[in-house]
Amino acid sequence: MGKPLLSNAGRPATVEIEAINESGEVVPTSIAGENPLTIYLDKRELVTLMTLGQAPEALTIGYLRNQRLVSGLDDIEAVQVDWDTNACAVKTRRPLEDIESRTARRTVTTGCGQGTVFGDLMDDIEAIRLPGEARLDESTLHGLLDAVRRHETIYKAAGAVHGCALFRGTELLYFVEDVGRHNAVDAIAGLMWLDGIEGGDKIFYTTGRLTSEMVIKAAQMGIPFLVSRSGLTQMGYDIARRVGITMIGRSQGRHYLIYAGAERFVRNGAGVTA
Amino acid sequence: MGKPLLSNAGRPATVEIEAINESGEVVPTSIAGENPLTIYLDKRELVTLMTLGQAPEALTIGYLRNQRLVSGLDDIEAVQVDWDTNACAVKTRRPLEDIESRTARRTVTTGCGQGTVFGDLMDDIEAIRLPGEARLDESTLHGLLDAVRRHETIYKAAGAVHGCALFRGTELLYFVEDVGRHNAVDAIAGLMWLDGIEGGDKIFYTTGRLTSEMVIKAAQMGIPFLVSRSGLTQMGYDIARRVGITMIGRSQGRHYLIYAGAERFVRNGAGVTA
Repeated sequence: MGKPLLSNAGRPATVEIEAINESGEVVPTSIAGENPLTIYLDKRELVTLMTLGQAPEALTIGYLRNQRLVSGLDDIEAVQVDWDTNACAVKTRRPLEDIESRTARRTVTTGCGQGTVFGDLMDDIEAIRLPGEARLDESTLHGLLDAVRRHETIYKAAGAVHGCALFRGTELLYFVEDVGRHNAVDAIAGLMWLDGIEGGDKIFYTTGRLTSEMVIKAAQMGIPFLVSRSGLTQMGYDIARRVGITMIGRSQGRHYLIYAGAERFVRNGAGVTA
Repeated sequence: MGKPLLSNAGRPATVEIEAINESGEVVPTSIAGENPLTIYLDKRELVTLMTLGQAPEALTIGYLRNQRLVSGLDDIEAVQVDWDTNACAVKTRRPLEDIESRTARRTVTTGCGQGTVFGDLMDDIEAIRLPGEARLDESTLHGLLDAVRRHETIYKAAGAVHGCALFRGTELLYFVEDVGRHNAVDAIAGLMWLDGIEGGDKIFYTTGRLTSEMVIKAAQMGIPFLVSRSGLTQMGYDIARRVGITMIGRSQGRHYLIYAGAERFVRNGAGVTA
């Protein structure tokens, strides 16, 4: 089949504006870029995402993947982004069945409040099996947090973005930032498909909160470890326990809290925590 | 007409779980509640919001307001929340015209990435007029930031929520937190309608980023001042300049940055900044 034909239309991450500070001085300030991108699936308007636009093709593929509108990269013939019209045209290899009804339901929304998830993801949660034997040890956790800290980010320059990263041990495979954290996780889902990367031995890191949708998406990607700098919400917690994901929050420096799946976590010199 | 008939179905804000910290100790941890709430508009399923659920009736009214599905409180006869079924039934006084097409378009989405805004809000931006003579002085800004700091919040207890507040000068009128910041701003929009409060002399504060949708919603509520602890995105900036809103970010302690509308801001002893 081969990979889909992709444009390569990343946008500049930041723009410069002038602000006035508390001393009345004009200060040049970097702010995060934000662009509307309307996805057309076989010429049918699907959704408009507001995105930083660093990896719009991977974002589109990951969006289709996480919304389960396509079942594999093989379904996609081409993804072409055109910023003159803020449009992303997706061409499939064969018409998607039942697309009307699969995009009709605007329910199960996000922890950021009012997201759009087509269909009913929760129905499929029960079918997800994460590898029970996978382990994460404390020194690996420390190492990946150090890697995040050292990574040059748009957040450091401009703020107002969320970052997601995929790790193999302490090796940083991807780091994607976006004005929306759902976009960042979707872009990583797209990159994983494009590079043929499986989730079973990976660790997903996010700067954002561990809400229901973040946990569902990590589980859909088959990733057993979810690490966040922030906290969690009740549904994120409930779903993590249902799907058996190891969820670690408040991770910064040497600190962390294990919220769920502690049996997969190995404290150094302390064996397996209970 | 009278006010709509409302249930009074606020939920507990936090729940207690046990987490394991870096010393291997089990620590009781408060986490933010998160509940799906499906809004039925005259028995027609509209959307499911994930919410903390503190003010679900005001949230629903504000959601309908900010999505411009109703044009006034008079349109609404009753809002009844039932957490046994996670449903909110809205009854209108007269059938809404054209509801099918007004809810069909899933475009113009949020800074959190993939929100749902029906219709095309941007078309109406040009019609918004904010009061040009309104002024915010620096000591009022300091006072309202102090009020936010002193306010007891779910964020302090559990994290993972965003807060929005409405001020008249330094007087805190409302403070609403939610797992989604769009929900928090919608709930304030609902409370303003219920209490007959206009926006023209108010200041809107948010802990979250100043994205396009936050600016649009503040402008729709007629509020000329938007203050955030966080930064902004490019579209938030562009829209603020178009609608002429005064936008202040990075506000914490004595620090702040004025991004737009500096002509409405009065530095103490320094006159009007240019």
